[in-house]
Amino acid sequence: MSTIQDVARQAGVSTSTVSNVLNGRTDRMGRATLARVEKAILALNYRPNRAAQQLKTGNNPMLGLLVPSIANPMYGYIAREIETVAQQKYGHRVMLGNTYRSKEIETGFFDDLFSHGVRGVIMISSQLDEQHLDLCVQRGLVAVSYDRPATPGASPALDHVTVDNAAAARMAVEHLISRGHRRLAFATAAGQTMSRREKVRGFLAAAQAAGLADSAHVIEGSMQAGYGDSEMADVGRMLAARIAADPRRPTGIVAVNDLMAFGLMAGFRDAGLSVPADVSLVGMDGLFLSALMNPGLTTVRLPVPLMACKLVERVIGRMADPGIKPGEFIFQPDLVERDSVAAPPQPVRRLA
Amino acid sequence: MSTIQDVARQAGVSTSTVSNVLNGRTDRMGRATLARVEKAILALNYRPNRAAQQLKTGNNPMLGLLVPSIANPMYGYIAREIETVAQQKYGHRVMLGNTYRSKEIETGFFDDLFSHGVRGVIMISSQLDEQHLDLCVQRGLVAVSYDRPATPGASPALDHVTVDNAAAARMAVEHLISRGHRRLAFATAAGQTMSRREKVRGFLAAAQAAGLADSAHVIEGSMQAGYGDSEMADVGRMLAARIAADPRRPTGIVAVNDLMAFGLMAGFRDAGLSVPADVSLVGMDGLFLSALMNPGLTTVRLPVPLMACKLVERVIGRMADPGIKPGEFIFQPDLVERDSVAAPPQPVRRLA
Repeated sequence: MSTIQDVARQAGVSTSTVSNVLNGRTDRMGRATLARVEKAILALNYRPNRAAQQLKTGNNPMLGLLVPSIANPMYGYIAREIETVAQQKYGHRVMLGNTYRSKEIETGFFDDLFSHGVRGVIMISSQLDEQHLDLCVQRGLVAVSYDRPATPGASPALDHVTVDNAAAARMAVEHLISRGHRRLAFATAAGQTMSRREKVRGFLAAAQAAGLADSAHVIEGSMQAGYGDSEMADVGRMLAARIAADPRRPTGIVAVNDLMAFGLMAGFRDAGLSVPADVSLVGMDGLFLSALMNPGLTTVRLPVPLMACKLVERVIGRMADPGIKPGEFIFQPDLVERDSVAAPPQPVRRLA
Repeated sequence: MSTIQDVARQAGVSTSTVSNVLNGRTDRMGRATLARVEKAILALNYRPNRAAQQLKTGNNPMLGLLVPSIANPMYGYIAREIETVAQQKYGHRVMLGNTYRSKEIETGFFDDLFSHGVRGVIMISSQLDEQHLDLCVQRGLVAVSYDRPATPGASPALDHVTVDNAAAARMAVEHLISRGHRRLAFATAAGQTMSRREKVRGFLAAAQAAGLADSAHVIEGSMQAGYGDSEMADVGRMLAARIAADPRRPTGIVAVNDLMAFGLMAGFRDAGLSVPADVSLVGMDGLFLSALMNPGLTTVRLPVPLMACKLVERVIGRMADPGIKPGEFIFQPDLVERDSVAAPPQPVRRLA
């Protein structure tokens, strides 16, 4: 790879002359000198090093993107949208980090953003505690957070782009109620994240509004140590066994996300229960994979492409103009009906 | 964290045997031994320690990673492994690019690697034509290619790390044959990539070796313009409709990858055919999602964690020591049996 020194040598000029050409400062330069430098740049296929350039302009065209695990199809989907928009619309590249939901790994990623001269970051973290994020903002990062609302009462140091998670859960519950379900459950994993908390809130509020508060329950599966790809599905599979063993089990279940719904479906199959004949199920996310399940999964779909555009627009916009104040942007989901919801099974006594 | 000794103990082999597996030297190894070692590596979540923190490359500690689409769960899985190994073992960050299999986007990514001062790149490209990759090597990039063997006869300018795709297809066919299948098909998408070509070769060779050349066919679905997340599954769904309509249809099908198998399963369901009662199906990749399908998908699993380690080790190792010559590293897959394969259906005339 050729350097600015190579160009200077080949053109027989100083490196500062080459630098002047690269930065358009050619008004006092002799035409022959300019031609020699340009010829050398072309001959050596020299490309200015942006890492060096940004020392002067303070503008490194790269974003950080932090996800719990890119092997999770939902984060892969969002990351694909973010990278494509950042690159095609704004000419920015993306530095990716998997954090496994570890605050320590997240903090290490922020350190590396600084050392690589990256000033903007999109964070898919969803942890309840946002203090280490505030800290990196104080150090000068422009940060956008996905999938969590701003902490109420606090003056936000970063943007928040999220789906209305409470509305998503409400939509799922109302769909089950409209099909006749009265015994409802929300299946989730232990460990609070902001998005899970919002979904539980929406689930309980919708059940209460329908007069079903007493027969609506939150069922939590415990997570393994660490954060794996299939963990949510594993938790769902385990929860399904627990639910199947309960004679007063719910007939309509809302899963915290599609992956958990996939696990629940597999677990009910293991237990000899049929979806939707014995149990109805609604997922959340709208992964393309939910259409491939057997039966196809009814799910609350997030407007991922819109949210990705907003995430990128905010971080790049605020890097360019520090005067722009951080804001909160809440998007609405929609319900995609497939084959995992039916009327609840008739009680056995009706057969007698 | 587990050690190479732990793996050797669990697999009941010597550490040098484990080392041979880690380095792709498996051509003289018994299949059962290989399977035991790989199983132990996965079970213990072992990641080889290259003591590479000491490597002083004097380079920008960042790698480029180019994938067709990170929304595809297989690429998300590989990318998660690559990023984790690069970061945790070598202190390198990853700059990610989605290429949608476009040569133009790939070339633009290489340009940006240069301008960001990144000198190493892992490419998941799989295009038949490797010339633009050779070009970026000539310009000074250290490059490692995934999922394609070296071009025969050419002196390689880059490393090639791949699974033995022909062996993977052979394994799938032999499994179907062992269950009594005689009418076989390989379901793939139109458009040649190196890995698809190798799989087709392995499929046909195995069918021929079993005397079934006349009843083994390659069935190709056409791709839409562009490259979408669910494209492979969409092609599979469409192919299933075509296959279902054929009275002399195959009873045993090998899918080019798990996503296509997911689509085939959904398509057969649409057509009123049951897997495996009417059609048996084997996927390739070993996504965790294949265990969640209904029925669970039998699939040929790629040793992704091992290949990811090798990809990262090679690119960082060669950046540190330009004297290391590019090489070819071929890993062996194994078969994971689930519920999508059964004996072929009895011909209807037997019922009379």
